[in-house]
Amino acid sequence: MAPTTPLLDTVNSPADMKKLGLTELRQLADEVRAETIQAVSVTGGHLGAGLGVVELTVALHHVFDTPKDILIWDVGHQAYPHKILTGRRDRIRTLRQGGGLSGFTKRAESEYDPFGAAHAATSISAALGFAVARDQRGEKNKVIAVIGDGSMSAGMAYEAMNNAAHATKDLIVVLNDNDMSIAPPVGGMSAYLARQVSGSAYRSLRKIGRQVAGALPKPLKEAARKAEEYGRGMVTGGTFFEELGFYYVGPIDGHNLEHLVPVLKNVHEMTDKPVLVHVVTQKGHGYAPAENAADKYHGVVKFDVVTGQQSKVPANAPSYQKVFGAELVRQGEKDKRIVAITAAMPSGTSVDMFADRFPDRAFDVGIAEQHAVTFAAGLAADGMKPFAAIYSTFLQRGYDQVVHDVAIQHLPVRFAIDRAGLVGADGPTHAGSFDVGYLGALPGFVIMGAADEAELTHMVATAADIDDRPSAVRYPRGEGTGVGIPDKAEILQIGKGRVVREGNTVAILSFGTRLQESLRAADLLAARGISTTVADARFAKPLDEDLILRLAREHEALITVEEGSVGGFGAFVLHMLADRGALDSGLKIRTLTLPDIFQDQDKPDLMYIQAGLDADGIARAALRALGVDTAKAGLRA
Amino acid sequence: MAPTTPLLDTVNSPADMKKLGLTELRQLADEVRAETIQAVSVTGGHLGAGLGVVELTVALHHVFDTPKDILIWDVGHQAYPHKILTGRRDRIRTLRQGGGLSGFTKRAESEYDPFGAAHAATSISAALGFAVARDQRGEKNKVIAVIGDGSMSAGMAYEAMNNAAHATKDLIVVLNDNDMSIAPPVGGMSAYLARQVSGSAYRSLRKIGRQVAGALPKPLKEAARKAEEYGRGMVTGGTFFEELGFYYVGPIDGHNLEHLVPVLKNVHEMTDKPVLVHVVTQKGHGYAPAENAADKYHGVVKFDVVTGQQSKVPANAPSYQKVFGAELVRQGEKDKRIVAITAAMPSGTSVDMFADRFPDRAFDVGIAEQHAVTFAAGLAADGMKPFAAIYSTFLQRGYDQVVHDVAIQHLPVRFAIDRAGLVGADGPTHAGSFDVGYLGALPGFVIMGAADEAELTHMVATAADIDDRPSAVRYPRGEGTGVGIPDKAEILQIGKGRVVREGNTVAILSFGTRLQESLRAADLLAARGISTTVADARFAKPLDEDLILRLAREHEALITVEEGSVGGFGAFVLHMLADRGALDSGLKIRTLTLPDIFQDQDKPDLMYIQAGLDADGIARAALRALGVDTAKAGLRA
Repeated sequence: MAPTTPLLDTVNSPADMKKLGLTELRQLADEVRAETIQAVSVTGGHLGAGLGVVELTVALHHVFDTPKDILIWDVGHQAYPHKILTGRRDRIRTLRQGGGLSGFTKRAESEYDPFGAAHAATSISAALGFAVARDQRGEKNKVIAVIGDGSMSAGMAYEAMNNAAHATKDLIVVLNDNDMSIAPPVGGMSAYLARQVSGSAYRSLRKIGRQVAGALPKPLKEAARKAEEYGRGMVTGGTFFEELGFYYVGPIDGHNLEHLVPVLKNVHEMTDKPVLVHVVTQKGHGYAPAENAADKYHGVVKFDVVTGQQSKVPANAPSYQKVFGAELVRQGEKDKRIVAITAAMPSGTSVDMFADRFPDRAFDVGIAEQHAVTFAAGLAADGMKPFAAIYSTFLQRGYDQVVHDVAIQHLPVRFAIDRAGLVGADGPTHAGSFDVGYLGALPGFVIMGAADEAELTHMVATAADIDDRPSAVRYPRGEGTGVGIPDKAEILQIGKGRVVREGNTVAILSFGTRLQESLRAADLLAARGISTTVADARFAKPLDEDLILRLAREHEALITVEEGSVGGFGAFVLHMLADRGALDSGLKIRTLTLPDIFQDQDKPDLMYIQAGLDADGIARAALRALGVDTAKAGLRA
Repeated sequence: MAPTTPLLDTVNSPADMKKLGLTELRQLADEVRAETIQAVSVTGGHLGAGLGVVELTVALHHVFDTPKDILIWDVGHQAYPHKILTGRRDRIRTLRQGGGLSGFTKRAESEYDPFGAAHAATSISAALGFAVARDQRGEKNKVIAVIGDGSMSAGMAYEAMNNAAHATKDLIVVLNDNDMSIAPPVGGMSAYLARQVSGSAYRSLRKIGRQVAGALPKPLKEAARKAEEYGRGMVTGGTFFEELGFYYVGPIDGHNLEHLVPVLKNVHEMTDKPVLVHVVTQKGHGYAPAENAADKYHGVVKFDVVTGQQSKVPANAPSYQKVFGAELVRQGEKDKRIVAITAAMPSGTSVDMFADRFPDRAFDVGIAEQHAVTFAAGLAADGMKPFAAIYSTFLQRGYDQVVHDVAIQHLPVRFAIDRAGLVGADGPTHAGSFDVGYLGALPGFVIMGAADEAELTHMVATAADIDDRPSAVRYPRGEGTGVGIPDKAEILQIGKGRVVREGNTVAILSFGTRLQESLRAADLLAARGISTTVADARFAKPLDEDLILRLAREHEALITVEEGSVGGFGAFVLHMLADRGALDSGLKIRTLTLPDIFQDQDKPDLMYIQAGLDADGIARAALRALGVDTAKAGLRA
């Protein structure tokens, strides 16, 4: 049931919040929180992060003149309250649905989203771009980046802070410190922030908050001086940021509008160097089930607002993630040189299963994929057997390290490439589309794609066994196919595929998880009298040249199928066939890949249909290759 | 003439340095410096960086037990003295030559190079890998990373430091602060380090250096305590590193062995948390021509040791870099929204030409490609026209930002991809092999490859004109072809190639700089009676489908030629032809790419021959496709 929101109902855009007093802002925050909870209870999505910044969102839109003032949310999954307040309330219950609002900020969606996000730690760099553009034009609008403490483990945030004072004098960075990104925070920076918050400054600040608020309004210059004193005088530290050229203001209670609003007003007037405002918030704040959950309701499915009970659908099969985690533990039992690395995704990747069993052999490096990869390379160079479990889309952050530190040195780092292919509700920023191409171009790499969870088990064992070169296993998000897990994982022969079904007119050569759909496509073709071979390539590199040449020779048409972009598996097959002269006398070859667009979020099944990677799409491609009219064949045109 | 090096002549490995006293170490350092200068005067290469760390190199190998103790040089171009002292002196005059020593550290070359490098800021991550592997085995060897202040602008260094104290208690990071990477240093970190050095601590340290040295030897525990006090008591700051969990020791005069040796001995015994030793050095130290040069002889060609005069060969044509810089300035004159970004390569990319003309519109962000890309995206999102000039190999560092911040948002960032293709003496770590594939997979990108310097001029103008999507222009290192620069740059039609020579049996479709060799190949073929079309694709994305389909239709064989890896231009051509059915009835298509190995450094001409991308190799591929015996045709087999 929708909450009662009399004040929120009057707010159509941030302009309607300008004249509200603190009491009304407090009420507005409460209503936004209720609306956020109710909306996410219907749609599922990121809840804890948004609840943590309700007051901050209200304060920012009250104090600043958005969208003229540029407000950039890092990651963007905390921006649901922001969406509610910026003209998107009417669509808030379409979050993460096909055709609906994105679960992140998105330029195409609203002028209040000047820079979209989803990956961490981009906001300060982007904000600096906006600040410099403004300075070039001689304009005066403010630019604000809101970044979480988890993102502060990413080198990119440091690169941007290192450049900030050099690039502009007028920039505001709000550090939203909830001591919790997706997993508990990692590293020296996190400990440093905790010391700031536990220091006397923060405690005394709580007392003097009202006093500072009372000091306003004052002449602007005086207010600015005051704000600076506020920041500089109150802290035990902040030195870290000050050494990089920022004013440091904080820590401030991020749920207390009586602190937030005056401090942001003061900060608004500081234009002689960049300011970092350290705001302390609680993830999941104001909703008991979230506050009490270990992960603070980071990501949830539909739930009951009153009880907080999530309506998880029972799984039909174990997820690829759990299968990976379980086999990694088994391998770890056998060989103590096996270690596991995750970049802030211990639960998402199931590295936590390995960490539970071998606490000293699991490493969560934080949101730091560059470091993760080269750290793994160092481990491999000294005789360990590292598995780096990283989502395909996030491994893009470590690409140079994969090339320079792993591939060029032929080091046996094992990449467990999670979330390979389409990801559904998280949309284009999280799709794992490019890994086969960007890794397959690298000399010496072994690249495996798991067709199902049994195959994944074998491939993890195979990767553990590959000790003379880099390897990667890619597998998708979510539930397996239900084939069952073998008692004992086999070590696969490198560069050898397998024929799953024999035929003689069409050959479908699948790499990875589209194998089931390829088999269904073969059924569709068989029903139309077309005999079809289906093969599982298993390896995108090295290719099973014998198998592929045979398929080319013995069939009229060859269809490659993969859940990845152009320039990947299909391209490698084409290169090989061309260079072997196997296309010289004609082959009806088609390479089915993800389409050359960034697919918006939707139900996975619909996304596969859009991509033409469902059984129907695969069969259609084969029929077209054979010159059969697909409409007459009873398939979609 | 080789210098007289009586002491160095007795040092075959670091073991021979263990018993030397400070006076002898001083002499050894002088002889290593003379040997380094003389060797580089013959080979060319990186000189200033090595001269700056002669004493540090001597001190490290004297104090530590390499190769059991792990010594990792960041970047590795400063490691010539290290190579001289670690059994490679007999080959030191083969540096950067074909078959000779690498200009960087390299695992395959020596057990004293436990982790190779060439890109910046990887050393701390790698060292942490070695330290953790050691801890896992319960061993006690030391692990030392030596990293320059320039590398400290890279986020990767911060990610590693953020993780260090969490991962191990026993790690030494030597910060080699020469206040100069390739270009003057950038950002808050650099200013911070300068403050450390200019502070009273460093000055007073000079006085007390001898006193500290005199305090040794002492019982180890006492020495460790002393070292800690030394570091902690003496400094004005160091807070930055201490906040991340390091002991901070320094700053120390990096040319004074009487300071370096005892401090390193003390640091050797510190095993309760990671230590950062801040060493101040002078790039080019001890060689007047280097000390007096603006770039401290960062990279040099052969030179006269006495005068320092470099024997530059007069250029036959302007370099691609200068042509890019000049056209960027011309575009900048016409449109003040054009801004230029470089990541620590202002001179290498010629962004310095733009900076000279428009100082407020050029941004050197330091070694920070991630930030560079997203900063550019922010500028583009706010209406500016950014050109990000980055070497192909270094853009790998910003790949996720290209995907997530530029491509998904369709922002018109213009990438000037310098050093695309093979680079000669810098070897595999610097080759620009992968960009066409990793960018071409991204929906919406425009990718141009310049066939010569006139084309580059047109393509820079075209990129300036593309305002609705991302674009990239790739061009190689070094001299142009001498075609002359057009008076006025044309705006090319997007996705349209051009036919350069008409024929009817073979079609050679070149993307980028192999066009001249393709034309020569056509001559070779013509001499053998084979009529050959040569086309310049200009665009790898979008492809000129009409042109390519026509070439396929009207010729017996189609040869694609590019200076890039598999999965790039040739792959896109194959995908398109396959999906259009243009391979169905047979086409002798061959895709010539860089080979699937990391090619070691050599003269570019020889590397092209190895790759089969010279005229002879291209002609041979065409003949083979046609079924002609290449030996009989008078070409190499």
